[in-house]
Order: sequence, then structure tokens, then C-alpha cells
Amino acid sequence: MPPRRSVSVRSILAAIAAAAIAATAAVAAGAAELRGTGDLGVVIERAKGRVQIVDTTARTSLGVVDGLGDLSHASVVYSRDGRYAYVFGRDGGLTKVDLLERRIAKRVMQAGNSIGGAVSQNGRIIAAQNYTPGGIKLFDAVTLELLADIPAAPGPDGQPSKVVGLADAPGQRFVASLFDVGEIWIVDASDPRQPGVRRFRDAGRQPYDGLVTPDGRWYLAGLFGEDGLALVDLWNPDRGVRKVLPGYGRGEEKLPVYKMPHLRGWAIAGGYAWLPAIGRHEVLVVDTRDWREVARVPVAGQPVFVIARPDARQVWVNFAFPDNAQVQVIDAESRKVVSTLAPGRAVLHLEFTPRGEEVWISARDDHRVVVVDTASLKTLATLPADSPSGIFFTSRAARMGF
Amino acid sequence: MPPRRSVSVRSILAAIAAAAIAATAAVAAGAAELRGTGDLGVVIERAKGRVQIVDTTARTSLGVVDGLGDLSHASVVYSRDGRYAYVFGRDGGLTKVDLLERRIAKRVMQAGNSIGGAVSQNGRIIAAQNYTPGGIKLFDAVTLELLADIPAAPGPDGQPSKVVGLADAPGQRFVASLFDVGEIWIVDASDPRQPGVRRFRDAGRQPYDGLVTPDGRWYLAGLFGEDGLALVDLWNPDRGVRKVLPGYGRGEEKLPVYKMPHLRGWAIAGGYAWLPAIGRHEVLVVDTRDWREVARVPVAGQPVFVIARPDARQVWVNFAFPDNAQVQVIDAESRKVVSTLAPGRAVLHLEFTPRGEEVWISARDDHRVVVVDTASLKTLATLPADSPSGIFFTSRAARMGF
Repeated sequence: MPPRRSVSVRSILAAIAAAAIAATAAVAAGAAELRGTGDLGVVIERAKGRVQIVDTTARTSLGVVDGLGDLSHASVVYSRDGRYAYVFGRDGGLTKVDLLERRIAKRVMQAGNSIGGAVSQNGRIIAAQNYTPGGIKLFDAVTLELLADIPAAPGPDGQPSKVVGLADAPGQRFVASLFDVGEIWIVDASDPRQPGVRRFRDAGRQPYDGLVTPDGRWYLAGLFGEDGLALVDLWNPDRGVRKVLPGYGRGEEKLPVYKMPHLRGWAIAGGYAWLPAIGRHEVLVVDTRDWREVARVPVAGQPVFVIARPDARQVWVNFAFPDNAQVQVIDAESRKVVSTLAPGRAVLHLEFTPRGEEVWISARDDHRVVVVDTASLKTLATLPADSPSGIFFTSRAARMGF
Repeated sequence: MPPRRSVSVRSILAAIAAAAIAATAAVAAGAAELRGTGDLGVVIERAKGRVQIVDTTARTSLGVVDGLGDLSHASVVYSRDGRYAYVFGRDGGLTKVDLLERRIAKRVMQAGNSIGGAVSQNGRIIAAQNYTPGGIKLFDAVTLELLADIPAAPGPDGQPSKVVGLADAPGQRFVASLFDVGEIWIVDASDPRQPGVRRFRDAGRQPYDGLVTPDGRWYLAGLFGEDGLALVDLWNPDRGVRKVLPGYGRGEEKLPVYKMPHLRGWAIAGGYAWLPAIGRHEVLVVDTRDWREVARVPVAGQPVFVIARPDARQVWVNFAFPDNAQVQVIDAESRKVVSTLAPGRAVLHLEFTPRGEEVWISARDDHRVVVVDTASLKTLATLPADSPSGIFFTSRAARMGF
């Protein structure tokens, strides 16, 4: 069929060029990004306000995504398809990062000072825990639209309490602790625009962090203002808050604490919980059937993260300053340190590959991430990174309490 | 710039059309497939030799992939990126299915009669367990190139034994049972072209299935030829095989067994294992600390799969004929059946979404898959499927012993 006269050769050429560019762009995007997301993750580059996107199969960095604000205490949760990372910044920024297109998909400033968040069991709701103003906000995971704003109860100064230790629990629930008023709240987000809140008052003095066990049954909050831990049985919330491990804490002498340990990085292995002691060079072993201490393992410094290898055979520990250039490996059966590694200066975090054959370790002051074989303890790869802190793999999407 | 005279308008139009088609195809492929893989899965359509690819967020079927041979006892493992499903057919076919492009990426006929397989901890090796000829074969996960062929020890008839109960274990190991010779083998595939084999003779009479616990520590084999189970401590293989649960089996009276239960579908919840009793209308509760029976739960029929909801609060059970139109829900705390569902005729399998808020159930004779909310027990979606059997979600890629 001959062309109509009104179509100029020039416009035809322009159309060809446009079509060719579109085709090339589409093919390039498709070729670069058509891939599974099960072996992806992000590394926080805290000083630059950006994340690296990494591939744990190839042990490489795929690129960076910039413009995420203050990431000095950042944490990450994932969409249930593993494509999007939700990055909680210290400045209240909540950024949804597309790992496949390696760009920001959405970003909202949702508070003045925030300390992290969680994703609901069904992946549809993102919850942020905030210091200023103190409270919990719920967002639609797709659009980041605000669904509910739950102010915290006011503390002694009349301001809403800081919220800490927020974790997801089965049944579209979130559990959190209120530092300034000593309460634990269970938020039922089944109807996220009308969330229900169940308050447990007198939970303990100054809860500073909390966690939900991997099976979703127990919520455990660490207390800064007294010794012991606060425990809620989420299967039986009517039983209220129980105090356990009366010896857990700084003790009568108020030990100096160089960095509060992260309870979230706790370990359950073989029915035992491995907890960082506060201010002591020890890891505590606790029987989760009765929440009694059964052993203490001496380690190289004040533990910060205590994390079980996914197969539960080893427990890995990093430390507060001045012992933070070391990482120790505890054998879960003998309950003894079996190896001490020196992966770099200022080890801030470590993350196991989903089935535990390798571990990624961030060494902030050496600006690198080190990938270690957990069987041979050999270094398999070293990736440059600017002041790396948290490392988060997409396999978290399928796990509870993260 | 004016066009050269030698370019005809007709050829320009052809170029436009080609570019437009290319662009459209590329955009369509990109648009259809650029997605995370964490919420994907496959449903086996056993009679048609094909799989449906499903999306657990939208609760929909995305399409079918055909030509997989005899899928009458098919099982599936995943690549560590979640993009590829490895489908083991009964006829010895091993098919690598690309979930994103929805096509067969590779296919080999690797045996005459096969019963499933496993993927190594690091995702790099696929192992097949075969009946004819009896043995284990190791394949490269990327290319499906044969890396090693490990014939089974010969049985009383001089033929290599059938291999059953193959499971992955930490340290790039596989563990399997040899039905005809009563042995358990640990295969070390660290060097997959030169695998090491450690044999445990006299493991028990006629092991018919086996499993590795979710923490990777224990291998447990069911015995058809005697009562009891064979247990290997993979942390301490030198201790050999131990017989546990002497009351587990068909007993002195040799109960009729309508379908051998699948041990692989077992449940660990709160340190207790939930096992299908053989030939009895019971689920056994076993303490994994000492492998002693602590309770029996009466159920509606002979259990086939006994599977814990990922948060360990519920244990779901399906049954052998003639009770196979029911599914029962056991409360893990009270150890009582709390609900009985009738999702359809001939329930063959069930699979929980990664964090347990929903369960997918296949009803073969009603040609449907039913998606149920595990809290309300309401049906959320019903998907047509031709004689559906196994359902396998990509979250298995991140778990051990699957």
C-alpha cells in the first residue's frame, strides 16, 4: 500500500528513530532486569544516604539508588514479591526502592525522627515506629498512602512517647513498646484504616527494643530502666505481661553500656534463644520453653547482634566499640566460641544468605562488605561500600518478626 | 537531514512496522515479566503434564507451561533467585521451568523412573533420586549438565536399590534412604564431580521416605518393614543411626495402609514434631529434644500430609481415601482439632503462603485449587486447574530440607 502524500519522509524518519529508541530502551530494561528477586538485597551506605543493590548468587553489587536522606539508623523490610525494599530513614523518610529498575518508586516524609518499621503478615501494610512525634503510622504498601496515625500515649513531659521494638505478628498485627511510658501495645491492623489497639500498662521501665520470635508466638522487650525482660504470649494475650530473666540487664552496679544491643538480631536455635548480655562480655542462652537462662558464653566484647546461622548450628556475634573489629562464631552444641574473625574495622551488621552457606559482613570504617563462607570461614568476595551499615536480603519477605 | 534517494518509502514503512513490532514485543515482554518472584509458585496439573504458574498476591494463575511428561508423582524445588522451578517427573524427566518467561528453559530425561529431588544449600546443584536405575544423580543447576551419577547399592535382586527420602542438608550435603537395602547415605557434594558418600548400613528395614528438620540437624526416615523411625544426627554423624519411636508404624497387627504418609510434609512447631501415624486416624506429637512421643491427636482419617502453618499456631492435615475430601486444623497449643473443612474431592496437597496468612489446597477431582484465609477459614479464591496435585511456592528456595 502506497503512503499517503501527507506523510513526509522527515516525519517517517522521526518515527523510525523514536520507535528504535523505544525498542532499544525496552529491550535494555528487559534484558537488564528480567530476573528473579530471591537472591537480591540492599546494603545501606549510611553517610551517603543511598543503598547498594546486591546479588548474593554472583556476590556482586548491581548498582546504587540515591536520595534516601539520613540513613544513620536505617532499617529495611520487603514487599512480599521481593521487588521493593522499604527503607526507613532516621529523618522520618520512608522510601520504596524498586530493586529491578534500581530507582525510587515512592518516597514520603512521615515523621521528624523515626527508628524503623515492619511489614504486615500479608505484605499489604507498612508500619513505621516514630520518636517525633511519638507513635505508629500505617501505610498502604503499594501507594504509601497514610492509612492510620496512632499517636503514642504521652510521657512524663506531656509529649507522645517514643515507640521502639515494633515487629509484625501473625493475624495482621504489630507489637511495639513505648519507651517513655513503659507500655507494650498490640495493634490489630486487620482493618488498617480503623486499627484496634490493645494496651499493656506497667510492662516495665523504659523498654528500649523488642522482638517477635520466628514462630510468631512471643514478644520480648528489653528494659533499660530495670533488670529483666518483658514477655507477652501472643497466643494468649489475656495472660498479660510477664517478667522473665531477672538477671538480664545492667544489674545493681549499673554497668557502662557502650552501645545498646539489638534484640532484633537475636537467635533461636534448637528451642534456645541466644541473647546479647547488656554491658557484659557474654551471650546468654535461654530455654524458650520456660524462659530460664541455661548458660552464658564468654565472648570478646559487649555483643551487639547475636544471630543464628539459618541452620542453627552456629551463632555469630559482633561487638560494641572498642571490640568492634571482631566477629565471633559460637558452636551451638558445645556453646563455645570456635572462631574469631577480623573482617574489618567497625563491624556494624551481618546478614546470612537465606540458607546460611555464606554471611555478608559490613565493616564501616574499612568501607567494605566482606562475604564469608560459613563452613570454611574463607573470604569469598570483598565489595567496596561507603560506610556500610545494615545489610538486608529479600528472603526477609518470607519471614516473621523481621 | 534529507533522506537518501535509495531509501524507498516502502522500505521505510517496513522498517517502521518492524521497529514498532519489536518495540511492542519488547515492551509487552518487559511489562508482563518485570516483576518480583517472591510471590510466585507452580501448581502441578498431573494428568496434562503441565504446570500452572500462580501469583499468591493477586491469587491468580498467570499461565501454563506444557510438555513436562508424566507428573503423576511430581515434586518441585527452586533456584535460589526464585526464577526457575525444577520439576521432577515420575518418568525421569527433569524440567527447568522459567517462571518469568513462562517456558521450559531446559529439560533432560535423566532416569526411567524417578521420585523427586532436592537442591543444594548454595543452590548450585540439583540432585535427583531414582527408582530405575536406582541411584542419585547430580546436575548443574544452570545447565542441567550431569555432574555425577551415584548408583545405589544392589538389593536382593541384584539391581540397584530404589532411592527415597532425598533431602538437602547444610554443608552442600544430601541425605537419602535406600529402600531395598535398608541404608541411609550422606552425599557430600562440595565437589559435585567427585561426591563423597558415607553409608550407614542396617539403618532399618525398607525406609520409604525421609526428611531433614527445618534447622538442618536431624534426618529421620520412616520404615515400612518394621516399626520405629531411623534417626541420624547430622551434627554428629559418627554417632550413627538411632531407632526412635518404637510405636511408630503398622504395629503387630499390620494395619491396612491406604496411602503411605508423606514425611516430607511434616511439621515442627515449638520444638515438637507432628507426624502422620501410619494406618491410624491419628497425628503423633513428638518432642524433638528427646524424640519421644508426647501426645496423639485423633483425626478424621489416615493422615497424608501434616503441615504446620509457618507461625506454628496451627497444624493442617489431609487424608487418604476415603476421607480425602476433608482437611482438618489442629490447634498446636491445645492439641485438638478445631476445624474441619471440605474444600473439594480428593485433596492431594496444601501449601501455605510464606508467612502463613493463607493456604492453597488442591482438590484433584473437583479440578480446582482453593485459597483459604487461615484466620477466618473463609475461601478467598477458587482457581480452576486440571487434576491439580502438588503446590509449590518460591519461598521454598530459602528453606532447608525441602
